[in-house]
Amino acid sequence: MAGSTFGRLLRLTTFGESHGAGLGGILDGCPPGLELAEEDLQRDLDLRRPGQSPASTSRKEPDRVRLLSGVFQGRTTGTPIAFFVANEDQRSRDYAEVATKFRPGHADWSYVQKYRGVYDYRGGGRASGRETVARVAGGAIARKLLALRGVDLHAGAVELGGIAASREEMDLAGAFDRPYYAAAPGVVPLWDERVAEAKSAGDSLGGIVEVVATGVPAGLGEPVFDKLEALLAHGVMSVGAVKGVEVGDGFAASRATGSRNNDPLLPGGFDSNHAGGTLGGISSGQDVVVRAAVKPIASIAIPQRTLTRDGEPATIVVGGRHDVSAIPRIVPVIRAMVALVLADAMLIQARMSVLP
Amino acid sequence: MAGSTFGRLLRLTTFGESHGAGLGGILDGCPPGLELAEEDLQRDLDLRRPGQSPASTSRKEPDRVRLLSGVFQGRTTGTPIAFFVANEDQRSRDYAEVATKFRPGHADWSYVQKYRGVYDYRGGGRASGRETVARVAGGAIARKLLALRGVDLHAGAVELGGIAASREEMDLAGAFDRPYYAAAPGVVPLWDERVAEAKSAGDSLGGIVEVVATGVPAGLGEPVFDKLEALLAHGVMSVGAVKGVEVGDGFAASRATGSRNNDPLLPGGFDSNHAGGTLGGISSGQDVVVRAAVKPIASIAIPQRTLTRDGEPATIVVGGRHDVSAIPRIVPVIRAMVALVLADAMLIQARMSVLP
Amino acid sequence: MAGSTFGRLLRLTTFGESHGAGLGGILDGCPPGLELAEEDLQRDLDLRRPGQSPASTSRKEPDRVRLLSGVFQGRTTGTPIAFFVANEDQRSRDYAEVATKFRPGHADWSYVQKYRGVYDYRGGGRASGRETVARVAGGAIARKLLALRGVDLHAGAVELGGIAASREEMDLAGAFDRPYYAAAPGVVPLWDERVAEAKSAGDSLGGIVEVVATGVPAGLGEPVFDKLEALLAHGVMSVGAVKGVEVGDGFAASRATGSRNNDPLLPGGFDSNHAGGTLGGISSGQDVVVRAAVKPIASIAIPQRTLTRDGEPATIVVGGRHDVSAIPRIVPVIRAMVALVLADAMLIQARMSVLP
Amino acid sequence: MAGSTFGRLLRLTTFGESHGAGLGGILDGCPPGLELAEEDLQRDLDLRRPGQSPASTSRKEPDRVRLLSGVFQGRTTGTPIAFFVANEDQRSRDYAEVATKFRPGHADWSYVQKYRGVYDYRGGGRASGRETVARVAGGAIARKLLALRGVDLHAGAVELGGIAASREEMDLAGAFDRPYYAAAPGVVPLWDERVAEAKSAGDSLGGIVEVVATGVPAGLGEPVFDKLEALLAHGVMSVGAVKGVEVGDGFAASRATGSRNNDPLLPGGFDSNHAGGTLGGISSGQDVVVRAAVKPIASIAIPQRTLTRDGEPATIVVGGRHDVSAIPRIVPVIRAMVALVLADAMLIQARMSVLP
Repeated sequence: MAGSTFGRLLRLTTFGESHGAGLGGILDGCPPGLELAEEDLQRDLDLRRPGQSPASTSRKEPDRVRLLSGVFQGRTTGTPIAFFVANEDQRSRDYAEVATKFRPGHADWSYVQKYRGVYDYRGGGRASGRETVARVAGGAIARKLLALRGVDLHAGAVELGGIAASREEMDLAGAFDRPYYAAAPGVVPLWDERVAEAKSAGDSLGGIVEVVATGVPAGLGEPVFDKLEALLAHGVMSVGAVKGVEVGDGFAASRATGSRNNDPLLPGGFDSNHAGGTLGGISSGQDVVVRAAVKPIASIAIPQRTLTRDGEPATIVVGGRHDVSAIPRIVPVIRAMVALVLADAMLIQARMSVLP
Repeated sequence: MAGSTFGRLLRLTTFGESHGAGLGGILDGCPPGLELAEEDLQRDLDLRRPGQSPASTSRKEPDRVRLLSGVFQGRTTGTPIAFFVANEDQRSRDYAEVATKFRPGHADWSYVQKYRGVYDYRGGGRASGRETVARVAGGAIARKLLALRGVDLHAGAVELGGIAASREEMDLAGAFDRPYYAAAPGVVPLWDERVAEAKSAGDSLGGIVEVVATGVPAGLGEPVFDKLEALLAHGVMSVGAVKGVEVGDGFAASRATGSRNNDPLLPGGFDSNHAGGTLGGISSGQDVVVRAAVKPIASIAIPQRTLTRDGEPATIVVGGRHDVSAIPRIVPVIRAMVALVLADAMLIQARMSVLP
Repeated sequence: MAGSTFGRLLRLTTFGESHGAGLGGILDGCPPGLELAEEDLQRDLDLRRPGQSPASTSRKEPDRVRLLSGVFQGRTTGTPIAFFVANEDQRSRDYAEVATKFRPGHADWSYVQKYRGVYDYRGGGRASGRETVARVAGGAIARKLLALRGVDLHAGAVELGGIAASREEMDLAGAFDRPYYAAAPGVVPLWDERVAEAKSAGDSLGGIVEVVATGVPAGLGEPVFDKLEALLAHGVMSVGAVKGVEVGDGFAASRATGSRNNDPLLPGGFDSNHAGGTLGGISSGQDVVVRAAVKPIASIAIPQRTLTRDGEPATIVVGGRHDVSAIPRIVPVIRAMVALVLADAMLIQARMSVLP
Repeated sequence: MAGSTFGRLLRLTTFGESHGAGLGGILDGCPPGLELAEEDLQRDLDLRRPGQSPASTSRKEPDRVRLLSGVFQGRTTGTPIAFFVANEDQRSRDYAEVATKFRPGHADWSYVQKYRGVYDYRGGGRASGRETVARVAGGAIARKLLALRGVDLHAGAVELGGIAASREEMDLAGAFDRPYYAAAPGVVPLWDERVAEAKSAGDSLGGIVEVVATGVPAGLGEPVFDKLEALLAHGVMSVGAVKGVEVGDGFAASRATGSRNNDPLLPGGFDSNHAGGTLGGISSGQDVVVRAAVKPIASIAIPQRTLTRDGEPATIVVGGRHDVSAIPRIVPVIRAMVALVLADAMLIQARMSVLP
């Protein structure tokens, strides 16, 4: 209700601000008997650490995760799995400017309106990108659960600063081994150039992330309001900086004709996958394909017009070390959300086993 | 959980198939004292009736709605508002082909997988576009609730068959008075041509719908998982045929730089609205702008390859009268979903009044 | 949220007032393939009709139920099952007194406070006992689902007007064949006498209802907040007039010692069932035993002190035909709530089948 | 869904086992601006510590709580409030017997059934009474929120080992200052005697706890399924060892007549409070009165018959230091649940402020 819980049978509830004791979450509803260690969560968390590419800062955020409950003798017990990541590297910065001026493109303005003037301005509080630590940790568990049933998730950046990776050489499975978690190798030098350009201008860039889930069984998702793509859209759009979501051909489908967009069924399976793995909102057994549009980072070194909290006009230059783009660090976050949606849908579909 | 309920404090639960007694829903959580009559729902339902444009069939669906509860002496009582629309015009068609062959692009295949072979194949059952009748009826009540607080919703088609309406002459407020509920007048003749072409080819078209909510107070939506755009994405993507959703500049924002995408705050308000009315997932007081990508209608008169329910290869020509495009009939449906999300968020934000 | 929905994977949402078009509900989440006909619901509805015993009035409420969706070719499809019961016998009574005076023990006062003066005073509106029609209809479906898995529910009155049925001759399975749905035959003449006495005094009586579920598999319910007894308590206490709930020995257990209250495990099963079928909030495989304390009917023919809606002191004699006791008509209602809880818990526990 | 979350707009999600890193929770939905410090939670936690009365052990459980998020400059920010209590005093006990034999009256048997053989047997895992630490911490915040609106909660033991405190000398407000948190002073010596007797027999005792909330505004709770007493019953019955709940006169009301049970309305307010503060499930403005039946502690020093995990008959003597009764330590736990229910209902009722 108040926004910190996601999911139905598999529920992730998170807490924490960028400046405070730390961040963490509780994943409730994971079935018992799943092998789980801190290292499983740590591996995914390391993927969202800064310093993975020229587009990210070199801030040190070790982000060591600690499991607090729900695991006994190396396996889940079926009870809530809590985890915690302590905040570090909180140098006593000067927040005077942020405390008094609204940063354009940031949540400062809307949080102050929502919470009647109360706002933890240090680093964005709950609106900080750091909250995604808990998503990634929860998603890591969901991925392990999915893997048991043969579902695998690949993710990467397919566009950065308006430059798209080539569909022909697309290799999503290898993305995490490339700079920018690029979906294809050839685009990397072009992105290097684009990033260098933006960085020298003190500006920032957006991009597009794609996630493909293979091995998804048919039958996931519910009719009407909880269609699989609706749940995916909810989860992915809830990630800060995401302003658009599409499944399958998405916006391109709106420009196709029915005869080109329908996927024929052949004895060996579907002949194409324009739908992105769902029919009528229910998974069809094909790969589930999701893309997210990521806006450029709001914090830029270029002076911007804004207001002080007293309503006076002002100019702000957002200081500190900032990423040039949410890509690539947002890639494992979006993958985590897709994993949480699919694992949850799988648990809910299990109810069908009740009837003989 | 099973997908027929949407919302939290304002909850719409729907039921019904295209072939059966009828469709309806229960809207629970509407505050007491709101003036409400069947005519309020009927007005919106009439907007989704067939025959509104060359892109729709002339099937007769009178769709008279009846209020069953929750209204006393012309006002809501605060208790659940139930409504019902009886099905008519169910000519005893021959469903033999649909009963035995999967229609490409339809939910037949995935429903059969999900429900272990059980499927009401007549007209698509619960996956029929007819289920949106209940969304529109519920949304009509939400719109009345929003109007009380000064929130107004405009909606229209901004693209059809790949042809976009001109942003310069955009007039969303007048869209329901134009063919195709076109967002701008100049594009109508072009769409006429495109529709005629598709119709004569036995093919179908997709398009893009835009909804703009004005007067939305700042502070709606919740941090992290229930960001306003996440709820909007959930609601809008849950409408059949929608394959993509964006808020504000959406996918275009992913190609902008931060300096161009951030909306400066000036004493008179924001200087632009690239964000589409949210900051950090919370409404900022600006117009809320949502767009939905609508795929082409799956039912086409062109022969398609498919399988029989026994797995044999087959060819299918989907008979019957079908719309050439979900546009314009889907426009009031998407508006309804946006209304339900905003009204629900408004009720939830009211909790802040608890503290002195 | 607004109170008209019960359950999680199996969700009943209801609507309707005693005076209006009718009452009904939507049961969402029932698995596909369950044989279901209107007669299945009607059978249970007939058990809550007036005129079943000397304690009930002879008002004519035919209460014919109609299935509106979710059933195709005699079986559930997995989509929402809607049902409707039209109101009849609404003689144009004079509600002048009820409209202006608060009836003691009724919801008039609290509804007026809650809904800021709005209240459908005719027959109690949503607070009328008639809302239980929808519970019984939904519960009938839940019972059919449970029966498929070997779970059976027995229910009856174990106390009326302070006179308890004998535990020795208890025969809950036969209760619906006796007056008052008495749990044992011998007590019937004593209750006849007690009811006659109350009736002639213009007064009313309360009682205690017991439900026993047999064949409940071990493992239902969740740790901590959703213990099976917590869900049962929620469901049963939500029935109007119920003011107390206990599971197993309940209040008597609070007076026992641990050595007497613990149920020993023997190779052939448990040696006793003081716990009432749960351990740590999870079903143990024993019979689930629930009892509900039902307060006396608030509508009595004896003059009572009260206030007018303007706050003036007044005397009220609640006219009309009223039951002397909610027993026996409340018996099938409480059984329905227990059935809904158990069926829902069974669907949720099915998630365990996800792991190999 | 999986049982670790309670509440709707104010949601408490908890985690942790008796043996592991610790226990904690996340309270989401608390409005911003509430003064809050660790000491507020600690004060209530200290009330459930062992050693408060002859009925409890002298185990050392310092239970220092730490706030991890949601508080900034001494006030809540409106974002999730996380707290953590590290486990201590986990002497490396010998769990060999518990690991191999089911303890009668404990959750061992049912957890093993539910979780397919997986069970953290050390100290009961998630079924341990220690999970209530998180309830008390969350309830402490709810109490502060309620206090702001003039709602105060009193709680105490009204019965222990079958010996009731005198209604005449009842002084619930002073209970936490007495041994056993006794609701009245005179009964303490009798309870001392009863406890000494049970202790020397190696046996255990149950009792009854009463909570009274004063200053509750009229209008809380929802019609039909979320009646205030249903929510209270859910919350209170979810506490381990509670087997019965009643509101107002509860089971005694089932033996009264309507003329005695109805509470007359007089110009100065209600003339009595048999209803316990609700009418039709909605708070009436009177004191809300709840009682919980607490079963005797399952761990006793007397040999009991049971089975090994291999199904062999066995005898078990549950070793270790155990309380003789859950009273008094359960008293603050039940008060916490009542506080969580009332605070949540208050936030939900705030939606009414949306209409002019």
